[in-house]
Amino acid sequence: MKYGIVAFPSKKVQDFANSYRKRYDPHYALITPHMTVKGVFEANENEIKQIAENVANVVKEHKPFTLKTTKVSSFAPVTNAIYFKVEPTDELLSLHKNLNDIGFNDEDSYAFVPHITIAQKMNSSEHDDIYPQLKMIGAEFEEQIDRLHLLYQLEDGSWTVYETFRLSGAE
Amino acid sequence: MKYGIVAFPSKKVQDFANSYRKRYDPHYALITPHMTVKGVFEANENEIKQIAENVANVVKEHKPFTLKTTKVSSFAPVTNAIYFKVEPTDELLSLHKNLNDIGFNDEDSYAFVPHITIAQKMNSSEHDDIYPQLKMIGAEFEEQIDRLHLLYQLEDGSWTVYETFRLSGAE
Repeated sequence: MKYGIVAFPSKKVQDFANSYRKRYDPHYALITPHMTVKGVFEANENEIKQIAENVANVVKEHKPFTLKTTKVSSFAPVTNAIYFKVEPTDELLSLHKNLNDIGFNDEDSYAFVPHITIAQKMNSSEHDDIYPQLKMIGAEFEEQIDRLHLLYQLEDGSWTVYETFRLSGAE
Repeated sequence: MKYGIVAFPSKKVQDFANSYRKRYDPHYALITPHMTVKGVFEANENEIKQIAENVANVVKEHKPFTLKTTKVSSFAPVTNAIYFKVEPTDELLSLHKNLNDIGFNDEDSYAFVPHITIAQKMNSSEHDDIYPQLKMIGAEFEEQIDRLHLLYQLEDGSWTVYETFRLSGAE
């Protein structure tokens, strides 16, 4: 089964992101707007119990963090995905690193560029059309994230929550 | 903001339900297959913190329960919704009652008929066409549910998870 760990921003940010995802992101109906903290990985139902325990141990060591988006950016030409850029604070990078230290990582070792996708799977000319428009909308939000969610994927591609974890670490 | 509390069945049951929801349930893309345990209610962001605490206290007193579906049934003529009928065990009824005792309930005081919807929002003739077919597929599943999820609804109608709660009560 496929799993992943994400943070969901506030309803306000999700509604704003969805107003664009609706048109430009074919994953719109599969998952609500999110920032991935540990990328998609494969695990079976026994492994996931151990992984969930390990995740619980990691989040215990981390306190709630600030999710600050600064602008609309794009991964082109690597992929034609457009996103709200999330500031890669030390807290967030360290949380990501500790979650990856659990193992079960995607083989592609991309650098971690925290983001909230709002458009993807376009061809280059669509991308080049839309990107300047989306860039202009801006995306300046700042909020506290106090929990992460471990999700799993159904056969139709949609994501269901398995468990939430509070970032309960002391200062 | 709108909230609700649900249990998600296993991936196997969700995939099976989705194979029908895809065609017959316009809520297909808004939420994955689920059994509602506390119906949709309105609360603001301050209220929900207190409610979540109360839910945590309730689930602490309940142990994991058996979700047993027995057949495909319909709410017609009340609403044209078709569903997997879930056995209303004492544990499940008591869990529902304790969650409703928290308050913040839908004003319509329907009796609690636990179910997993697979088709809805049809007109009567569509319903009468489809129901005999769906009845034949049967729906005999039995599994353990060890957690509940508190969800909230975005402006576009989709549901995001707020928190999961383990049914950790002793025997």
